Amino acid sequence: MATSTTEIDRLIQLLSKLPGLGPRSARRAALDMLKRKETMLTPLAEALRSAADGVSTCSVCGNLDAADPCSVCTDARRDQSTLCVVENVADMWALERSGVYKGQYHILGGTLSALDGVGPEDLSIGPLISRSEDDRVAEVILAMNATVEGQTTAHYVTDRLMGAGVRISRLAHGMPMGGELDYLDEGTLAWALKSRQSVSGT
Amino acid sequence: MATSTTEIDRLIQLLSKLPGLGPRSARRAALDMLKRKETMLTPLAEALRSAADGVSTCSVCGNLDAADPCSVCTDARRDQSTLCVVENVADMWALERSGVYKGQYHILGGTLSALDGVGPEDLSIGPLISRSEDDRVAEVILAMNATVEGQTTAHYVTDRLMGAGVRISRLAHGMPMGGELDYLDEGTLAWALKSRQSVSGT
Repeated sequence: MATSTTEIDRLIQLLSKLPGLGPRSARRAALDMLKRKETMLTPLAEALRSAADGVSTCSVCGNLDAADPCSVCTDARRDQSTLCVVENVADMWALERSGVYKGQYHILGGTLSALDGVGPEDLSIGPLISRSEDDRVAEVILAMNATVEGQTTAHYVTDRLMGAGVRISRLAHGMPMGGELDYLDEGTLAWALKSRQSVSGT
Repeated sequence: MATSTTEIDRLIQLLSKLPGLGPRSARRAALDMLKRKETMLTPLAEALRSAADGVSTCSVCGNLDAADPCSVCTDARRDQSTLCVVENVADMWALERSGVYKGQYHILGGTLSALDGVGPEDLSIGPLISRSEDDRVAEVILAMNATVEGQTTAHYVTDRLMGAGVRISRLAHGMPMGGELDYLDEGTLAWALKSRQSVSGT
């Protein structure tokens, strides 16, 4: 582009590689930042710098945190007897935001995928088995996404965990909160029907 | 969020203020960057830093560039007799990408808006009039967006330019390339019909 300088081009090019940003939104974001140098551009540059220096992967669970082991793994108030297996950090954070789970986590780092060449050795499955064999762990909750890849991976992990002497469970499948039958897909309806729960005796 | 550190929170908070990024996509972008420290996080921090240091607003046209006056204003091959008035830098870049215009630019810095309290004194209208009075300038092309605000601003600028001794024109309104009547809004159809052009004699 004749009108822009190398600095701006480079910035736009990097921004456009972020998930959710295409070339156009990267351009808009870059222009917006350049308009707000003091409040946006400089602070963001500093935030990136300190994140690069200060944040690392937790060697126990795989979370991203300033401390290793991370603040979740070292939190003494959390239940040591349950281990929740998730695909990635974003999933772990989603569960944390919901505030419904107070145990330990284990991040697999993805799902099995023959198409993308992701095999068991590419995921954190060995460490998961070691952790599951710890006497303090009584239950492993599989919280993979309700996708084909997620469920295939959950199946595989279940097989591998068979000898670890822990209870294995998975998240319930069914209608989401606020879901309307007319708008739900067939797969969800089939799941919801199959897993229907009794509400009165007899 | 209990699981994340101040560094990550700060990064997400800043990213979520960019146009086109909400809290969720900012979180995804931040996680993606942290996963690719060497190829993404560090280069982006440096790109932002050098953009903060090296890019400024052109004192002639209002473009963002490493040089002031910018590379467009100082390009001797460009036509000095036409001045294209746009709302903002993104619009100027869009015209430059199209490669159809080879004259000078003038960036207003927005549109008039009673609602947002943007008056004529908040836009670069005084400098536009001074530039238009230059003997080398023969035509001012108003290239504001085809929105109510853009067209109101174009009207106002036309009035102000009346005494400057230049030809004033505006971009054509009508069907966009590839537009199908069935999918076009009434406003566009009305414009296209009103501005219809004769294709044969009689």
